[in-house]
Amino acid sequence: MPDNALHSAVVEAEGHLIDSQILNTIFDTVIERGGQFEVLHFEIGRTNDEFSRLRLKVSSPAAESLQRTLEELMPLGCRAVEDQDALLKTADRDGSVPDDFYSTTNLRTEVRIGGRWQPVARQRMDGVIVVDAQGPTCRKLREVKQGDRVVCGLAGLRVAPEFRDRERSDFAFMSNEVSSERRVEASVTRIAAMIRETKARGGRVVFVPGPVVIHTGGGPYFIDLIRNGYVDAILAGNALAVHDAEQALFGTSLGVDLEAGVPVQGGHRHHMRAINAINRAGGLRGAVESGVLTSGVMVECIRAGVEYVLAGSIRDDGPILDTVTDINEAQDRYADVLASAAMVIVLSTMLHGIGVGNMLPAWVPVVCVDINPAVVTKLADRGSSQTIGLVTDVGLFLHQLAKRLA
Amino acid sequence: MPDNALHSAVVEAEGHLIDSQILNTIFDTVIERGGQFEVLHFEIGRTNDEFSRLRLKVSSPAAESLQRTLEELMPLGCRAVEDQDALLKTADRDGSVPDDFYSTTNLRTEVRIGGRWQPVARQRMDGVIVVDAQGPTCRKLREVKQGDRVVCGLAGLRVAPEFRDRERSDFAFMSNEVSSERRVEASVTRIAAMIRETKARGGRVVFVPGPVVIHTGGGPYFIDLIRNGYVDAILAGNALAVHDAEQALFGTSLGVDLEAGVPVQGGHRHHMRAINAINRAGGLRGAVESGVLTSGVMVECIRAGVEYVLAGSIRDDGPILDTVTDINEAQDRYADVLASAAMVIVLSTMLHGIGVGNMLPAWVPVVCVDINPAVVTKLADRGSSQTIGLVTDVGLFLHQLAKRLA
Amino acid sequence: MPDNALHSAVVEAEGHLIDSQILNTIFDTVIERGGQFEVLHFEIGRTNDEFSRLRLKVSSPAAESLQRTLEELMPLGCRAVEDQDALLKTADRDGSVPDDFYSTTNLRTEVRIGGRWQPVARQRMDGVIVVDAQGPTCRKLREVKQGDRVVCGLAGLRVAPEFRDRERSDFAFMSNEVSSERRVEASVTRIAAMIRETKARGGRVVFVPGPVVIHTGGGPYFIDLIRNGYVDAILAGNALAVHDAEQALFGTSLGVDLEAGVPVQGGHRHHMRAINAINRAGGLRGAVESGVLTSGVMVECIRAGVEYVLAGSIRDDGPILDTVTDINEAQDRYADVLASAAMVIVLSTMLHGIGVGNMLPAWVPVVCVDINPAVVTKLADRGSSQTIGLVTDVGLFLHQLAKRLA
Amino acid sequence: MPDNALHSAVVEAEGHLIDSQILNTIFDTVIERGGQFEVLHFEIGRTNDEFSRLRLKVSSPAAESLQRTLEELMPLGCRAVEDQDALLKTADRDGSVPDDFYSTTNLRTEVRIGGRWQPVARQRMDGVIVVDAQGPTCRKLREVKQGDRVVCGLAGLRVAPEFRDRERSDFAFMSNEVSSERRVEASVTRIAAMIRETKARGGRVVFVPGPVVIHTGGGPYFIDLIRNGYVDAILAGNALAVHDAEQALFGTSLGVDLEAGVPVQGGHRHHMRAINAINRAGGLRGAVESGVLTSGVMVECIRAGVEYVLAGSIRDDGPILDTVTDINEAQDRYADVLASAAMVIVLSTMLHGIGVGNMLPAWVPVVCVDINPAVVTKLADRGSSQTIGLVTDVGLFLHQLAKRLA
Repeated sequence: MPDNALHSAVVEAEGHLIDSQILNTIFDTVIERGGQFEVLHFEIGRTNDEFSRLRLKVSSPAAESLQRTLEELMPLGCRAVEDQDALLKTADRDGSVPDDFYSTTNLRTEVRIGGRWQPVARQRMDGVIVVDAQGPTCRKLREVKQGDRVVCGLAGLRVAPEFRDRERSDFAFMSNEVSSERRVEASVTRIAAMIRETKARGGRVVFVPGPVVIHTGGGPYFIDLIRNGYVDAILAGNALAVHDAEQALFGTSLGVDLEAGVPVQGGHRHHMRAINAINRAGGLRGAVESGVLTSGVMVECIRAGVEYVLAGSIRDDGPILDTVTDINEAQDRYADVLASAAMVIVLSTMLHGIGVGNMLPAWVPVVCVDINPAVVTKLADRGSSQTIGLVTDVGLFLHQLAKRLA
Repeated sequence: MPDNALHSAVVEAEGHLIDSQILNTIFDTVIERGGQFEVLHFEIGRTNDEFSRLRLKVSSPAAESLQRTLEELMPLGCRAVEDQDALLKTADRDGSVPDDFYSTTNLRTEVRIGGRWQPVARQRMDGVIVVDAQGPTCRKLREVKQGDRVVCGLAGLRVAPEFRDRERSDFAFMSNEVSSERRVEASVTRIAAMIRETKARGGRVVFVPGPVVIHTGGGPYFIDLIRNGYVDAILAGNALAVHDAEQALFGTSLGVDLEAGVPVQGGHRHHMRAINAINRAGGLRGAVESGVLTSGVMVECIRAGVEYVLAGSIRDDGPILDTVTDINEAQDRYADVLASAAMVIVLSTMLHGIGVGNMLPAWVPVVCVDINPAVVTKLADRGSSQTIGLVTDVGLFLHQLAKRLA
Repeated sequence: MPDNALHSAVVEAEGHLIDSQILNTIFDTVIERGGQFEVLHFEIGRTNDEFSRLRLKVSSPAAESLQRTLEELMPLGCRAVEDQDALLKTADRDGSVPDDFYSTTNLRTEVRIGGRWQPVARQRMDGVIVVDAQGPTCRKLREVKQGDRVVCGLAGLRVAPEFRDRERSDFAFMSNEVSSERRVEASVTRIAAMIRETKARGGRVVFVPGPVVIHTGGGPYFIDLIRNGYVDAILAGNALAVHDAEQALFGTSLGVDLEAGVPVQGGHRHHMRAINAINRAGGLRGAVESGVLTSGVMVECIRAGVEYVLAGSIRDDGPILDTVTDINEAQDRYADVLASAAMVIVLSTMLHGIGVGNMLPAWVPVVCVDINPAVVTKLADRGSSQTIGLVTDVGLFLHQLAKRLA
Repeated sequence: MPDNALHSAVVEAEGHLIDSQILNTIFDTVIERGGQFEVLHFEIGRTNDEFSRLRLKVSSPAAESLQRTLEELMPLGCRAVEDQDALLKTADRDGSVPDDFYSTTNLRTEVRIGGRWQPVARQRMDGVIVVDAQGPTCRKLREVKQGDRVVCGLAGLRVAPEFRDRERSDFAFMSNEVSSERRVEASVTRIAAMIRETKARGGRVVFVPGPVVIHTGGGPYFIDLIRNGYVDAILAGNALAVHDAEQALFGTSLGVDLEAGVPVQGGHRHHMRAINAINRAGGLRGAVESGVLTSGVMVECIRAGVEYVLAGSIRDDGPILDTVTDINEAQDRYADVLASAAMVIVLSTMLHGIGVGNMLPAWVPVVCVDINPAVVTKLADRGSSQTIGLVTDVGLFLHQLAKRLA
């Protein structure tokens, strides 16, 4: 293929390019896309602290594939050498945008407007960037209004990949692969330390617990965490509150007696009685105030003023009145809570875990605990280099965690 | 404990009590509940066709535990010897019922009203029974209106357990345990025959496909099933339609090229472009009519007039305009479709599979296909003795099924 | 099919036939085999304590299928009405038997010889019964010698199924299904009680630990069990000892630092150094005596006089000199240890767990702990109604167990 | 820490250092080991084809940790700048070596002897290097004889990491992560092409099938592969042959009827009858010659002259006479077959798959097919960058593969 038949562009990147497999991925991307690359300049960081600097010529057989390649290089920190302003187009109707809209990643992004680079607010993945007087902001497609100015194409965009920080004590710990054949106690100690540090510097810790927390007997330990101030908010579903109330009212969870560890025949109807009792009281707060509910995770949340959002799902029984049944509203309320999260801990819930992962910027660390390695792998794969996966029994995990945070 | 200190009651049951482990479970239930039993009369079916008849005295140390035991014996077909009318109480507010309401199972149930046994309509589990001029009907808690007459207590209720039918050719097949170490091709042949028989007698076959159907390349085979008239309705989520459209528009599914089997870097944004394209066209039907979407599972559904309901979830991107974002409404629309289902096939989706399982009466056979044995076990455990679980690759399963139904 | 064309036989059974699903399975077996049954007499146990009694006529279209059906009914406790002596044939060469040999189950079996019923010694599944002057004994095929008299056919055989005992406190606990969504702490308490009871009545507790015990940090807790006298013997593989020694010598297990929880690059070679060190010392005992090894599970076993057998496998590194590399010899030595076992606890090893399960009679309870539900299901399925499966993290399980047995 | 307190060394590496994450791993290794690095020189490959060149100063707080770090850098291709001969020490007894022996990786290794770099023969991981008149060779510890000269320390050793080859068509395919949510048919097409190419250039394809191949109905398709000449050797266990013979003689596999897909009660004894029949005939070859066995995978192997080795395990029934019951001998015979393997395909057997993985040099591609993602991950993790993992039903996989290789 004669070189002059190729379309090409020159991009630059800098940072810890060797770490985090960024340089490697840049080269892979070009080759996988059918292109070629030529390193025009590479200056390696001499030590662990120093940045590396890359200037790369990327060539592609067609203009379109070059454009796609450049788009894919962007989240790796590659930007055009010569600066341009971003291309803004106007949305012609609510909830949709021009075809060439820029779809966001969860990485820190800047937009060049009027010659000035401005950071994007509320960064999340799979959003669009709307620019108004306050500057550029991530929006979900459905939030776009007719007349909004939306960033299109790739010009005037700069994305900063998350570099792994080899100096942090948890560097090696966090690059662990998912495995059920590890000593969990060492990991719990690290996670407890991370929670402590996060709280010490004023950060908010958000928990995303599935109902398995209750089934596996983790409830009392989770309550310890709430009482000791380690839980700033809970994002969950209807089932967490229902099984928590079932446990409080009948001593069973999904019909299984938690003390005896055996199923109570007919106990599967307990959760319907719990739902009826809560809704008769006008919801969880009413049930607490009227004395219908006197113990359990949700009671402790209400007493301690811990914020909670319960999102509905197609498999809900009831639901209780507190559950947000409209998914768009539930997503908005989750996102509001996560906007101030400094650390997120997902406990045995793939559904809510993925939901939360979609909303978070890449720099908020996520701990994901599940006994099923497939769930941990799936959550850890979703973009963030800062997800810590732990394959273990969530009830025993909470026991260990509460002990370390007592 | 002196026998005269015990509370006791006499119940009767008849049917294939030895099969389906019903007699066994009756005895277990009494013992687990701390009670005692005495067989007053037992007449065994002499052959495979004949019914057995049981009259049993159940004793319990307390009136309350006796009541609970009797409640648990009810879904096993045990009924009081002397007939009474059901106790009806009036709901004092919308969406909630008296504390002693009867919580339904998914088994055929009759209510005695004015001395006459009447069958319950729209049978499903975890419902309440409301009695009006049309007779008794299953309702969800949230559907109860102030003033509705609701069945409470256990009097005047009769439940018919599903007996396994040893005469049916698929008897042995359907009592299989879940295992990934089985020859799938034999199972596919059986399932194809069941689908054919269902259609031949005018029954509706409802599919519940997860997006993994698309990721694993099952799309074209599923389309064959649609074209050949084997798909009467689809109950799914937003992701099915999104990844189907992504595949139609970009040749990828979750960013993976289906032909080459390799991830396309940056392909993860294709699904956002697909969502935008559909919503710009006003939804799926608009996208088909305007020529934006010309192929894929949803296109075939629309062309063939196959009913579909897409339920929203907290992890949705978009969603597309067709997605029912309110969970209560989505449940209602699922339930409407399932009201006429004669057979249900769940393909790689635990979320929607459990949702559907909650809504179905026990006599509708459910086939559940998933590569993860835990999902199959979980769905098979939910009450119906007629769930067939198959642990296999869903793409290859659809290939085999479409071949047999060509 | 005219009834007079059928071949038929009459069998009897007695015991807790309703429990343990025995009556149900008897009927199923006849139907699945293409036969018919007629209940000639059935007398139900009036209470939980009383036996039931069955007399059943079994018919089959052919003599051969009748014979097969009767063979399958035998482990369900069905025996011929009229007594005959067992048919003994002579083995014509070492290691093989006549084609119609009786293949044993793991249930209590009696053989009628010279008009007298005699119990079979060393009961295990998949054996043959050899009769000599001492009476009938289970042998493996390869142990049969030319000239041995071997039980053939079905005459003169009586098998006693294990009845579930509803009176035992752990009845409900032991009939639990396998699930990772249970509260483990309740189960650990039960298992600890069972171990205590077993020891109190002088029974031997045999542990079958996989190397995951070491990887997950369970080593120190397992050592507590050894020191407190709860471990009578260990049946394991080469890897347990190797990773235990690696941990003792280098602080890593499979190259992962147990304290820090992170992989040590290059640490994968530690296990080879451990093997070399042990073998230079002439094996484990030599390594303990010479001070090469001073801590770890194997050291504690040797100091406490706990019997151990390490079986070789195709994936072994080394192996260390203690490992029994011939599989037949390893099986024999396992079986010798198990001959006196009153309780067996399998910790995260499918390979050795299945091996042990094959050797045990049905009345020795087996506890199987694994984080992978598929392993627990597979072990629980292998014939014994007394297997207790627990899906949890084995390191945390041992921590909890050691605490309860301190 | 003053630089002059540090111990340091200078190493060099060259090759595709950016690819395969080698440069990244070099830096990580130094930092994780508590050391520091300084890049003295780095010359990046300008294009995809060109090599990169690195000269790196590594510093460590202690001589011992420096030595360990250098040892860990060796499999990454880092070698000392100034050449030395290897240090050879004499083994003082059979089966063991000096404490500072060099433990091999599965990568191409050269040893400098008398100033000349010589390649190591029979490269495998976890071996030692013995030098004799023929040059350096990998040996297992147990093969070392008193008086052998063994490579110790790190001097005079050069290891060549496997570089990923981005030019090969299967580059992107082979860097896939393990997932059950992929289209298997695309992967089967690739694997079929790899097998064809391997055979076309005269390479031997070795299969490692577990008994699940038989249970899942893959037998007939595997026989097609044998008949079409795609199977050069089989490495398996006793169970493969036993269940294959059970299927040939009784139509069941582990007691499950393969045509009907249902368990045959009592069928679990069929495998004992199969073992007895084979051993009466003096083993598999005798059974084929005498007409006892006339169909099945093993029959086809014998007829087609396909080499096979059956390794024993603690869970074997029988075993049949062909099974190699001594593990050391079985490993030796596996290794002999693998010495000439150009491609290895592992089908649903973790035990034998790991055994084989331990014996292979890094440059032989391994395909691993299993329905359990944990098994695929575990096998893929064991050192070779060239393992292709496929999570799917092995029976359906073989159907697809046989179709493509017909």
